[in-house]
Amino acid sequence: MGGTEDTPEVGAEHAGLSRRGLLGLAIGGGAAAIAAGGVGGYALAAAQRSGGSDEAFAFFGAHQAGIVTPVQEHLHFAVFDMMPRMRKNDLVELMQDWSYAAARMARGLEVSATGAVGGSPESPPDDTGEALGLPASGLTVTFGFGPTLFERDGEDRFGIRDRRPAALQRLPPFLGEDLVPGSSDGDLCIQVCANDPQVAVHAVRNLSRIAFGRARLRWSQLGFGKTSRTTADQQTPRNLFGFKDGTANILADDKAALDDHVWVPAADGPGWLAGGSYLVARKIAMLIETWDRVRLAEQQRIFGRDKGEGAPLSGGTEETEPQLSRLDADSHVRLAHPDTNGGVRILRRGFNYVDGNNELGRLDAGLFFLAYQRDPAHFVTLQKRLSTDLMNEYVKHVGSGIWAIPPGAAEGSYVGAGLLS
Amino acid sequence: MGGTEDTPEVGAEHAGLSRRGLLGLAIGGGAAAIAAGGVGGYALAAAQRSGGSDEAFAFFGAHQAGIVTPVQEHLHFAVFDMMPRMRKNDLVELMQDWSYAAARMARGLEVSATGAVGGSPESPPDDTGEALGLPASGLTVTFGFGPTLFERDGEDRFGIRDRRPAALQRLPPFLGEDLVPGSSDGDLCIQVCANDPQVAVHAVRNLSRIAFGRARLRWSQLGFGKTSRTTADQQTPRNLFGFKDGTANILADDKAALDDHVWVPAADGPGWLAGGSYLVARKIAMLIETWDRVRLAEQQRIFGRDKGEGAPLSGGTEETEPQLSRLDADSHVRLAHPDTNGGVRILRRGFNYVDGNNELGRLDAGLFFLAYQRDPAHFVTLQKRLSTDLMNEYVKHVGSGIWAIPPGAAEGSYVGAGLLS
Repeated sequence: MGGTEDTPEVGAEHAGLSRRGLLGLAIGGGAAAIAAGGVGGYALAAAQRSGGSDEAFAFFGAHQAGIVTPVQEHLHFAVFDMMPRMRKNDLVELMQDWSYAAARMARGLEVSATGAVGGSPESPPDDTGEALGLPASGLTVTFGFGPTLFERDGEDRFGIRDRRPAALQRLPPFLGEDLVPGSSDGDLCIQVCANDPQVAVHAVRNLSRIAFGRARLRWSQLGFGKTSRTTADQQTPRNLFGFKDGTANILADDKAALDDHVWVPAADGPGWLAGGSYLVARKIAMLIETWDRVRLAEQQRIFGRDKGEGAPLSGGTEETEPQLSRLDADSHVRLAHPDTNGGVRILRRGFNYVDGNNELGRLDAGLFFLAYQRDPAHFVTLQKRLSTDLMNEYVKHVGSGIWAIPPGAAEGSYVGAGLLS
Repeated sequence: MGGTEDTPEVGAEHAGLSRRGLLGLAIGGGAAAIAAGGVGGYALAAAQRSGGSDEAFAFFGAHQAGIVTPVQEHLHFAVFDMMPRMRKNDLVELMQDWSYAAARMARGLEVSATGAVGGSPESPPDDTGEALGLPASGLTVTFGFGPTLFERDGEDRFGIRDRRPAALQRLPPFLGEDLVPGSSDGDLCIQVCANDPQVAVHAVRNLSRIAFGRARLRWSQLGFGKTSRTTADQQTPRNLFGFKDGTANILADDKAALDDHVWVPAADGPGWLAGGSYLVARKIAMLIETWDRVRLAEQQRIFGRDKGEGAPLSGGTEETEPQLSRLDADSHVRLAHPDTNGGVRILRRGFNYVDGNNELGRLDAGLFFLAYQRDPAHFVTLQKRLSTDLMNEYVKHVGSGIWAIPPGAAEGSYVGAGLLS
């Protein structure tokens, strides 16, 4: 990251990262401090560029970055729970502080104006420093609100229960899942994507640090090798079964499909979520050693595509629309196809993961599935349809979560302002 | 990876990956099969290129690749134990099969001529396929032999006890370490590095698969964000303490230093190890949340360098030789300096790691330290000297291993032939 800024951050001196936090203090010092501090009104020159690791995506905007942004190479997904005795004001300040830091990091800057080395030598630095000198690397930071943030064990901790979207409910149980609490649920999620894993890890670490005393990291997941594309010029990547995945994904330039399937329309309510989305995360362990012993013809029958080209088994090339009736009735492509599901489509943005290996010497690996949709019921429809998927013999869902993804923040504001202010 | 080769692999048809394995069968079919199969005599055109993700490094040569090769972006380190009842011939065949597959993957090819999609549809593919279409990505595969391979519990399983290098001993205990068996020791190690994590994971997965029934994955470690440079044009990377690390590393073009410090000279013996090295791995957990609360001046005192530029606190720029007497006596730079250790130098090749988080919400993160040296005593000298390192308050060694790294294989041969044949 490119060192500290020229503009001093008025009113934002602080001893370490106190509970009041960075942007909280900036606001306390007057609204002018925000503009001076760099959140408002800067020219995001880097965002005009694209391609290469120095590309940068604007944090502020109508929608949060990290949804239709071309999928980056690396993921660090982090889920937080609010600490005991936190009130609404703490949540507001946390979202302000997180938004402030995320907006800076998206520009390739450190989390504050003094950053890793620009503060007093007698204080701990604001920024942990491992991304010093690295470019923005396409970093996006996407925040979400889980069902428990609105109500947990009948308690309305933050006074927002009546603003909860009716659709924001813990997902129903699905056949064959075996969920681990350490990879499921949580008050707040942060999806961090970047083309450099050090930049992604730096973001999660510093956001976690900013949350100190207010929210605690509940679980996290690193991923690589994006398994979906969101622009037509991205090559369709392969999952750990060796197959191209996400050929028929919703693409970023298909505005009609995004409006139909991804963005929550104002009519759906609540108003604060209009232009937002719902994120479903599923940690899907793959029994890759078992899969690897399946003969090629059977692997292809299960997917409904050939392994080399990625073409539907009904013929053609990767981009050819499959003729569903010519595929096995329980093949993945057929069951997941919109025509089998009343036209339902979702925007997939998953990553492969390898979490080391188990005691039997098998890789602890799989797909960290991430999908955005305007209505969680769309995912539920699909997942229920997949209950007879031939692939189920080789996968196990071990983690699950759902979060409402608010729309993007206006410059000078913060993610969640529509809900919290 | 660029699909299958034109040349069919004579004599290497096989049902799945049997214990006899790929190269074993190829050899069984006559030496000509090796040349036809692509191991011998090919022109490694890609290796002439450098820069970019399609760069390729020759697998065969005087030294194994992955030691002085410019450090790649990603690591997948894997340690194997031989299965019960294996004999020397099994070990030979395993090293042959591994070398064959590694040489192919280093060229951006699949693990065999039929690969992921070129075999019979009625057989499981030889290659798992997730790297199809990806370039070589600078892949290197480096094999090592641990102390237990030569003798375990007094048993000479493979008849090579008398060929064991005297210096190849489990490392002595060091102050403050807290080693976990699941990240320590093992018969065989494979260091896989690449600029694409999917390519690195693909290599470990397929080598593990090739070993099925003969050797079992004991532990593995993923890493990113190389923490050392091995060429002068690489920027010195930062570790998770936010400091530049490895400024004074041995560089690939410093032949004299490599001969003095890295390659085992013939005079040291045993003969089969001449031109090889010793690899020490240390998994060093960093208490990053504690570190992050340390004031900047103290962080810099502990390292002996400033955090921004990486210059020694005695003055100058990053490349300036430190004046040791002006640094804290227990600073890291001073204790690790050759002048403090009788001229000892090692070639570092470590990576940052993040293995998720613990129950307290702290990132399970640190440095996966890898170092090559011509004599393990050099590492022991350094590590003992570091027993008073001020940094020790913030790190804990949780994993450890040592392996003899044989020299590179000649084309058509395999790594370890000098020891095993």
